[in-house]
Amino acid sequence: MSETVYDKLAVIGCGLIGSSVIRAAREAGAAGEITVADSSPAHRARIAELGLADEVFADPAEAAAGADLVLLAVPVLSMGSAAAAAAPALGAGATVTDVGSVKGQVAEALLAACPDDVHVIPGHPIAGTEQSGPDAGFAELFRNRWTILTPSDRSDAGYRQAVERLGRFWTALGANVEEMDARHHDLVLAITSHLPHLIAYNIVGTAADLEEVTQAEVMKYSAGGFRDFTRIAASDPTMWRDVFLTNKDAVLEVLGRFSEDLQALSRAIRWGEGDKLFELFSRTREIRRGIISLGQESAEPNFGRDRGKH
Amino acid sequence: MSETVYDKLAVIGCGLIGSSVIRAAREAGAAGEITVADSSPAHRARIAELGLADEVFADPAEAAAGADLVLLAVPVLSMGSAAAAAAPALGAGATVTDVGSVKGQVAEALLAACPDDVHVIPGHPIAGTEQSGPDAGFAELFRNRWTILTPSDRSDAGYRQAVERLGRFWTALGANVEEMDARHHDLVLAITSHLPHLIAYNIVGTAADLEEVTQAEVMKYSAGGFRDFTRIAASDPTMWRDVFLTNKDAVLEVLGRFSEDLQALSRAIRWGEGDKLFELFSRTREIRRGIISLGQESAEPNFGRDRGKH
Repeated sequence: MSETVYDKLAVIGCGLIGSSVIRAAREAGAAGEITVADSSPAHRARIAELGLADEVFADPAEAAAGADLVLLAVPVLSMGSAAAAAAPALGAGATVTDVGSVKGQVAEALLAACPDDVHVIPGHPIAGTEQSGPDAGFAELFRNRWTILTPSDRSDAGYRQAVERLGRFWTALGANVEEMDARHHDLVLAITSHLPHLIAYNIVGTAADLEEVTQAEVMKYSAGGFRDFTRIAASDPTMWRDVFLTNKDAVLEVLGRFSEDLQALSRAIRWGEGDKLFELFSRTREIRRGIISLGQESAEPNFGRDRGKH
Repeated sequence: MSETVYDKLAVIGCGLIGSSVIRAAREAGAAGEITVADSSPAHRARIAELGLADEVFADPAEAAAGADLVLLAVPVLSMGSAAAAAAPALGAGATVTDVGSVKGQVAEALLAACPDDVHVIPGHPIAGTEQSGPDAGFAELFRNRWTILTPSDRSDAGYRQAVERLGRFWTALGANVEEMDARHHDLVLAITSHLPHLIAYNIVGTAADLEEVTQAEVMKYSAGGFRDFTRIAASDPTMWRDVFLTNKDAVLEVLGRFSEDLQALSRAIRWGEGDKLFELFSRTREIRRGIISLGQESAEPNFGRDRGKH
């Protein structure tokens, strides 16, 4: 058990990520008291049943009162209103962070909602599964995963100490912590996460609409590659809608490049240009080898591995 | 141990699939003698070291002499020449099958290459990993996986008995066996396997070409979805080049639909049409649930799970 980094942690939104933060923080002893706010009565009842938090509230302000860390774990487009709801209860020097997959727009929303004497430090743990809700979380979710913090350019000692302290919190939960500019984060995630999800959703939709191949056939013969896409395409619809709406520019940029490249591949197939296909297919093996040599593949658990019941 | 279905099995091409067939057939006792032909001296040396086959040859005809089952496990565009090379040694009543991912063009090539008194029964086990070569195979690869046979419309008793016997062979290896029309197979696989591979190759290529995001960053933060694509995009380049060249029409058809759908999604993102995104993202969850309820997810091992050393 490591040090207690925060005396009181308030988690606003207790789904897969929020409940995993709570479980991991408890296991590591990284937080003293833990309170939760969730807008869903069903979630609140379940959180109480699971005994996840010391107190469970509907109102973010009640959960946030006296907290030295307020962690927002709601869909990206709800971050601003969640922060605004908690704002009246925030004490001077408290840290407000989030776990959203988009950082530019979220940072703006949090800064607009929070008082000036609060440390706003947006964050993003790159971890998840396609499951949702308080039952889906688990303490090991962040272990050996990256958590990216995108602090503002404030250089005063109080703020930098708050950033360092939040880094220690995530480290206690098992994560590797990195700082990044919010705009760059949004571009990196657009290619490594947002575009893969968009494509997965899209191909599963295309498959469902085919007239000559039944949905039963698609499912039955999915082991040839398709099934990996269906797992990603089962991710939370609200969360992902918000991601695409709030990271529009970066997503459209990488999507445009992807589509151009795909047109070129399509043309190579149509004209039987086997050399072009072979060249690309050989090049992509190298990136895979790089990921394996980084040890990213053996880490457990992680996105894309099913876990628990279905 | 089940019955010996064939007295002599000749496997032409001993990579991931060929060597897995041999291992599974040995374990099940489904074949008596097993011979191998492989064009690669390195593969032949390794096959001998591993003790996979009773005899190892460079020439398909030498391996095929006296075999009652000749199984071709070479890249799709090499099936015809492999069959032609084995043809002089084929005895009347022998069965020639293959494991290629495309069936229409392969069926034509096999029929053209083989004498009329041979039973040509194209086949496709829907199983694999992104690994290649004789070391990559394992006996459990086909267990609880589908093997699709695409026999011709010959209805004579000898041919139908040969089809039934080949089905028993695959069943002994642990597979579920289904018969299908070759053209329909190629369309089903275009959406469930070929398009997923094309898209995975494409996105990994797009990511590698970005100027503002380094390859190191792409690898480091790949846990958000991208990594699943890199696994698929590490599959054998020659095999997949041949698949796209020989299943051109079906691949271009589903690729055209995928691209149309993606353009519509792109437009919805650009114009902030959250409802359209949410509707698609909710619909795709259903297909995932269908796959899980079919029990396709729990079966092990399968494509997309890493196995063994890297």
